[in-house]
Amino acid sequence: MTTADRTYNFSAGPATIPLKVLQQIQQELLNFNGCGASIMEISHRSATFIDVLNSARSGIRQLLGIEDSHEVLFLQGGSRLQFSMIPMNLLRNSEDRASYIMSGTWSQKAYDEALGAGNIDLAWSGKESNFNTLPKSTDLVLPDDSAFLYYASNETIHGIQFHETPATNDIPLVCDASSDFLSRPIDMSRHGIVYACAQKNAGPSGVTIVIIRKDLLDRSSDELPGYLNFKTHVEQNSMFNTPPTFGIYVIDLICKWLINDMGGLSKIAEYNRDKANLIYDVIDQCSDMYLGHAECEHRSQMNIAFNLSNDDLTSRFIDEAAKQGLTSLKGHRSVGGIRASIYNAMPREGVLALRDFMKSFYTRNS
Amino acid sequence: MTTADRTYNFSAGPATIPLKVLQQIQQELLNFNGCGASIMEISHRSATFIDVLNSARSGIRQLLGIEDSHEVLFLQGGSRLQFSMIPMNLLRNSEDRASYIMSGTWSQKAYDEALGAGNIDLAWSGKESNFNTLPKSTDLVLPDDSAFLYYASNETIHGIQFHETPATNDIPLVCDASSDFLSRPIDMSRHGIVYACAQKNAGPSGVTIVIIRKDLLDRSSDELPGYLNFKTHVEQNSMFNTPPTFGIYVIDLICKWLINDMGGLSKIAEYNRDKANLIYDVIDQCSDMYLGHAECEHRSQMNIAFNLSNDDLTSRFIDEAAKQGLTSLKGHRSVGGIRASIYNAMPREGVLALRDFMKSFYTRNS
Repeated sequence: MTTADRTYNFSAGPATIPLKVLQQIQQELLNFNGCGASIMEISHRSATFIDVLNSARSGIRQLLGIEDSHEVLFLQGGSRLQFSMIPMNLLRNSEDRASYIMSGTWSQKAYDEALGAGNIDLAWSGKESNFNTLPKSTDLVLPDDSAFLYYASNETIHGIQFHETPATNDIPLVCDASSDFLSRPIDMSRHGIVYACAQKNAGPSGVTIVIIRKDLLDRSSDELPGYLNFKTHVEQNSMFNTPPTFGIYVIDLICKWLINDMGGLSKIAEYNRDKANLIYDVIDQCSDMYLGHAECEHRSQMNIAFNLSNDDLTSRFIDEAAKQGLTSLKGHRSVGGIRASIYNAMPREGVLALRDFMKSFYTRNS
Repeated sequence: MTTADRTYNFSAGPATIPLKVLQQIQQELLNFNGCGASIMEISHRSATFIDVLNSARSGIRQLLGIEDSHEVLFLQGGSRLQFSMIPMNLLRNSEDRASYIMSGTWSQKAYDEALGAGNIDLAWSGKESNFNTLPKSTDLVLPDDSAFLYYASNETIHGIQFHETPATNDIPLVCDASSDFLSRPIDMSRHGIVYACAQKNAGPSGVTIVIIRKDLLDRSSDELPGYLNFKTHVEQNSMFNTPPTFGIYVIDLICKWLINDMGGLSKIAEYNRDKANLIYDVIDQCSDMYLGHAECEHRSQMNIAFNLSNDDLTSRFIDEAAKQGLTSLKGHRSVGGIRASIYNAMPREGVLALRDFMKSFYTRNS
């Protein structure tokens, strides 16, 4: 069970998981909770697993303060399937329209996919500024009759994050929170749907958490294919088919870690803000070498994206960092440069190590 | 890492996993292959994970003797999503028809879901005989212009299994092999699609393996939602979105176990036949107490379903077996009785223990 050889892993997702959680998984992998089998080996309808499912759901409810107004589902298929399911459920069999904020690669893909499923308006686009900024609420073009306004709360590739919930009057928000889910509180009363694939802050890849306001379920047509209908999953308690049991188990452990060890979402949000500032401060101090992508006021506390002045320097940065145990710092293949993803589970010590490396790399190369 | 308290787990799925595989997962859970992170924590686009993905795919290809004619995909959403995706892809935008064999609960659900997606004919139904038998090829009503013939090779709930591939002339077969995948060879040349959710013989829940003949991809309309289009997943090498990385890793380990420890699919098929016969022999010898559900010639080598003469006896059977470390023997809630699932990973010793218990229970209660 040695931990000595573990690196500080800045992967954008699947991403680092709290060491304590990994150690518990390891410890009980052959025999979960005295049931005589691994958590992977037991029926999803067994009392032992139902307890885990209920606990994971309660953990998410407790952390986000989710009222009875919303259901919490555990689905499969990632954000990509949500890109289709959301307009299929919320717009199908109606003349309704929906509005999308296009703030980066992921919300652009969501918008493109939605075009095939219904009447979609573009509320705002950051494409012309290369997705380095976000709209003020007054910038949004939002028809009064929009069924919902879609946005991605954090764009992993470009490293930008909404620090205030977009204002929409009473139009429900649909939020792709994949990359900052459980990293800070969310005003659930403003949201019709919040969804997230798990593999950034919440668990391993292969589970998608969908939180949906109950009244929106009335919009789902009975003619939708079974798996693609939110109502089916609500009625079957996320057991319409065999759920990804191991992933849900990890989500449960992570929720417990957030509640018991990290003090909940307000506390972890402070912790994350502090961690991010450690890196942004170096970027600002060494701005002749480190070129931050995002406009300052929209900087993400999850993904810090920056460029170095040339490709050779970028390669050396990545190689030298890896030799010091700071891994997965390469930027997304679509934009290049450096990306440091510092989700909940990245400890402050890891961020300090990266900060010190960045300072030293700057001194040695400028 | 004690294994002393592990039971013989007869769960129908998620189901028992080879102990050797679980031990390897446990051993390398904090640091996979020296990469400094858990397999759960690394990017699906990292060289380390791509090696795992390629190895899992090669393992399945090697075990089933899959030629270049077919693609192997790792998807999410289980059989339930395949129930929709298959007719959506193979019948959409055409006047084509497809035929379904309804041999049990799962193929019935597939048929019901397909009705919403295209022109579907019923080739045969076992509903009137309570799904205890299977058709001969001459029993099938199969129009010459059927685009495909759908069947489930094994029905977990009713414990029946096709021991010969249905004859269809040149009409491609589409097979739900969820519950006997990798338990015996498959004649891939006869199949357009073979798919399986992993949680019986191949891995944990949350991964769906889809093997599809390349020429069938031409049937998928570009207007299909991205995630629901087989062509998308082929073009993106199962990386259209973040795949369930941990599950694919477990599949890879199980393929290696099948190849290196169990001698491949012909060998494991013999092993499975022998195991099943140990139990069916007791059912036949004690037929005044144990009432096998399936007709003898269609008995499943994966799931053995039988009833006892009354509910009280059934409850006592389950309770007493559990006290001897033989767990998850309760029949599916829709049919009751007993179900012993003896997939690849159930060792012969476990089956012998169940056989001895059944004999002793019979002696004590008859």
